Amino acid sequence: MKLYIGNKNYSSWSMRSGVLLAAFGIPFEEVKLRFDFSPDSAWTREIARISPTKQVPVLVEDDGFTVWETPAIAEYVAERFPEHAIWPREPQARARARSLCAEMHAGFGRLRTLCPMNIEAFFPEVGAKLWAEDAGLRANVARLEAAWADALARSGGPFLFGAFSAADAYFAPVAVRLSRFSLPVSDTAAAYRDALLAHPAVEDWIADALREQDFVPEDEPYRTGR
Amino acid sequence: MKLYIGNKNYSSWSMRSGVLLAAFGIPFEEVKLRFDFSPDSAWTREIARISPTKQVPVLVEDDGFTVWETPAIAEYVAERFPEHAIWPREPQARARARSLCAEMHAGFGRLRTLCPMNIEAFFPEVGAKLWAEDAGLRANVARLEAAWADALARSGGPFLFGAFSAADAYFAPVAVRLSRFSLPVSDTAAAYRDALLAHPAVEDWIADALREQDFVPEDEPYRTGR
Repeated sequence: MKLYIGNKNYSSWSMRSGVLLAAFGIPFEEVKLRFDFSPDSAWTREIARISPTKQVPVLVEDDGFTVWETPAIAEYVAERFPEHAIWPREPQARARARSLCAEMHAGFGRLRTLCPMNIEAFFPEVGAKLWAEDAGLRANVARLEAAWADALARSGGPFLFGAFSAADAYFAPVAVRLSRFSLPVSDTAAAYRDALLAHPAVEDWIADALREQDFVPEDEPYRTGR
Repeated sequence: MKLYIGNKNYSSWSMRSGVLLAAFGIPFEEVKLRFDFSPDSAWTREIARISPTKQVPVLVEDDGFTVWETPAIAEYVAERFPEHAIWPREPQARARARSLCAEMHAGFGRLRTLCPMNIEAFFPEVGAKLWAEDAGLRANVARLEAAWADALARSGGPFLFGAFSAADAYFAPVAVRLSRFSLPVSDTAAAYRDALLAHPAVEDWIADALREQDFVPEDEPYRTGR
């Protein structure tokens, strides 16, 4: 099983699937396609060949069977490896976990647009300015706070549904954004953010990202170079 | 079990869950919250009470347990009513169906923004103008064409995975958009569009929408009144 990913420093969607597989110890081969959106780059050639949507991540089985989109990858892996509690075992917790993942998948637009994932960079001043100026960003974080607080109160933590699940993999890149842009959060949210950042699968991803030392202009609204 | 929905004429997300439940004959009480985004409207009061995201649709069990976001509702219903093939029974088809739903859930931005669902209205001239001017819209429809053609070729149709599944419920509002904006599609896509529009659960939804005779300015980029 291969997981095609983009730059670990930037690709929040790749991180969701990569961290999920790693957190559960599922064996897979990671294939990195370096972001380079010029017409004749290796990225442009390869992504058109392997991904129906020309996006990462994509999971490819040895026989060529392809699963795209992170929610579908999570469901596929959960079915293929039922010995792992990819989703919480309790039905209502499982439904809530899926609601949160779906909300993350299509929502939190201001947070995603204004505070793109960039693991190696720190933008506390940009974060402070955005926070002061953008009501949509504040509303996104307020919703995160409410969603996390509700799940953590029900489960007792440290992860949203107690043990680490697909829902936590979904919010791992959010923990990076909150951290890198120094966005103000409650103690509850800060503790969860830090639990995510300290998870071994997340730490490994971050360590790999820091080794990339690559600069992709399309993913850099706030820097002109490294 | 209650399904809270918005205006049937406009709410494409409500349609996805409503059509899914109806298509499989799952008993539920439909509760319509009429769109009215003024601060003291019934919508504004009720939606804050029932929906964590202040959006429809929301599925609420008799004991108050709430499932939000259409992908989570589909998964919950599939687990709660395993006698129905909400998802295709064959694992690879099921994975593909989920990939398509996830793609729809978070993608096709130009189609969704430029051609909002409005069942009672016909905008062929707007559609022709948008089609001529917007490369993103054409790219969205090209991706739809490819995705549908692939699934239909594998299954033989008439629906994406043979029998009607959650994936078809996801594309029912797209069939409305293609029809109302008269967007040009291949014969294969047109046949699938028409199969969707002729499905009894879709027909019922459309008939209800036509009876609403309501006008919500926020959902009307192209009309000033009915």
